[in-house]
Amino acid sequence: MTRFRFTVEFDGRPFMGWQRQAHGPSVQQAIEEAITAVTGETAVLHAAGRTDAGVHGRAMAAHADVAKDITPFRLGEALNARLRPAPVAILACEAVADDWHARFSCIGRRYIYRIVNRRAPLTMDAGLAWQVAAELDADVMHAAAQRLVGRHDFTTFRSAHCQSESPVKTLDRLDVRRTGDVIEIEAAARSFLHHQVRSMVGCLMMVGRGSWSADDLGDALAAADRSRLGLNAPPDGLYFMEAVYPESAAR
Amino acid sequence: MTRFRFTVEFDGRPFMGWQRQAHGPSVQQAIEEAITAVTGETAVLHAAGRTDAGVHGRAMAAHADVAKDITPFRLGEALNARLRPAPVAILACEAVADDWHARFSCIGRRYIYRIVNRRAPLTMDAGLAWQVAAELDADVMHAAAQRLVGRHDFTTFRSAHCQSESPVKTLDRLDVRRTGDVIEIEAAARSFLHHQVRSMVGCLMMVGRGSWSADDLGDALAAADRSRLGLNAPPDGLYFMEAVYPESAAR
Repeated sequence: MTRFRFTVEFDGRPFMGWQRQAHGPSVQQAIEEAITAVTGETAVLHAAGRTDAGVHGRAMAAHADVAKDITPFRLGEALNARLRPAPVAILACEAVADDWHARFSCIGRRYIYRIVNRRAPLTMDAGLAWQVAAELDADVMHAAAQRLVGRHDFTTFRSAHCQSESPVKTLDRLDVRRTGDVIEIEAAARSFLHHQVRSMVGCLMMVGRGSWSADDLGDALAAADRSRLGLNAPPDGLYFMEAVYPESAAR
Repeated sequence: MTRFRFTVEFDGRPFMGWQRQAHGPSVQQAIEEAITAVTGETAVLHAAGRTDAGVHGRAMAAHADVAKDITPFRLGEALNARLRPAPVAILACEAVADDWHARFSCIGRRYIYRIVNRRAPLTMDAGLAWQVAAELDADVMHAAAQRLVGRHDFTTFRSAHCQSESPVKTLDRLDVRRTGDVIEIEAAARSFLHHQVRSMVGCLMMVGRGSWSADDLGDALAAADRSRLGLNAPPDGLYFMEAVYPESAAR
């Protein structure tokens, strides 16, 4: 039995999310079925994060145990061949220690949220970004975002379906950058609450268009009250970018 | 009668190309039909370039004459509303002089070609980039590309269907840059032959993977012989980025 770590890229548009669902296709199911097709084994895939329907992955980390004698290179190639034409790709496949765990060993998660700030509808980016017509001030958004950095009760930014034991999380970084009409918001933390990134982005958008001040954002955080949420951004613009592990745990 | 200049973004995947075709949908037809729907007039659209099937546009320039009394802002908004759900968007719409011509006034065209250099298949970038599995040396490609810059007979890099009067063109810039696993090739010239950018990119890929030397590329150019073409890159990675006009002609 070998534990394999996978780095996975996926287009979230056709999926009900990462996690297996009774009512529709999921990234987890697509990969588990590919593993079964390649190995003849029933596989259970564990991931660093469980993204929602429509959210994308640039480098999701996941693992599964495989009994078949196969090299990481051949397993990765075979999975990619089986996954076609689903928009899921194994970017890297490596053998890891038996106690390495994609979810429990993970000590950091990083997301990027993409806003295209223009009046015109999206074409090739449809479903891959949030189009916001109102002019947004990215500098004001970045300054306000710093109110959220640090250890806080993020109840305001938490979905009613969140299964986390505590609403208290430490947000390590929340940066807002503009390049042309694209605004990227980068969020890094050990872990996030369900909907936390999208909820923070929605409120930052309100700050960027001038409907909220930075104080309004701070007050909403301090209230620790979901009803004070300004707006939950759509899944389209959200990308899981990176899962961080202690160096020693990766081999 | 007012002449309107349009800046157009489009996803080339569902289209047979820019130009109207009897056998399938085109970007030109989509916009002309939208103009007719908005104005009740039969419109003829002229563009700076005629992209092939599967080629994309980030900022194609085009113009049409409209008799209806309508502001550029309202026309742009109305066209975008009519164009949905086709992946075509009017990014800008402005009134120009009656003698301004999207094709004949254009003094420069700029394209970017995107290669994703990795073994894994594409997911959200499927149809939007050329996936090349063999490891490419972008620095070697850039150095070789400089052999093509300048005034040359580009017959080797010219489609059999090219309607240009002369195969002699002046290539102003051909830059190759790598960012992570993405290689971008930027080409700028007053005008290009049919398939010229894709043919240059295909040969640069051969240089990048080591099948061709820079001298091989130079020899292929000097031969001025289509049969010496190494490879024509697929349309997926090609983007029309910009049409350049003399300042005075734009208003």
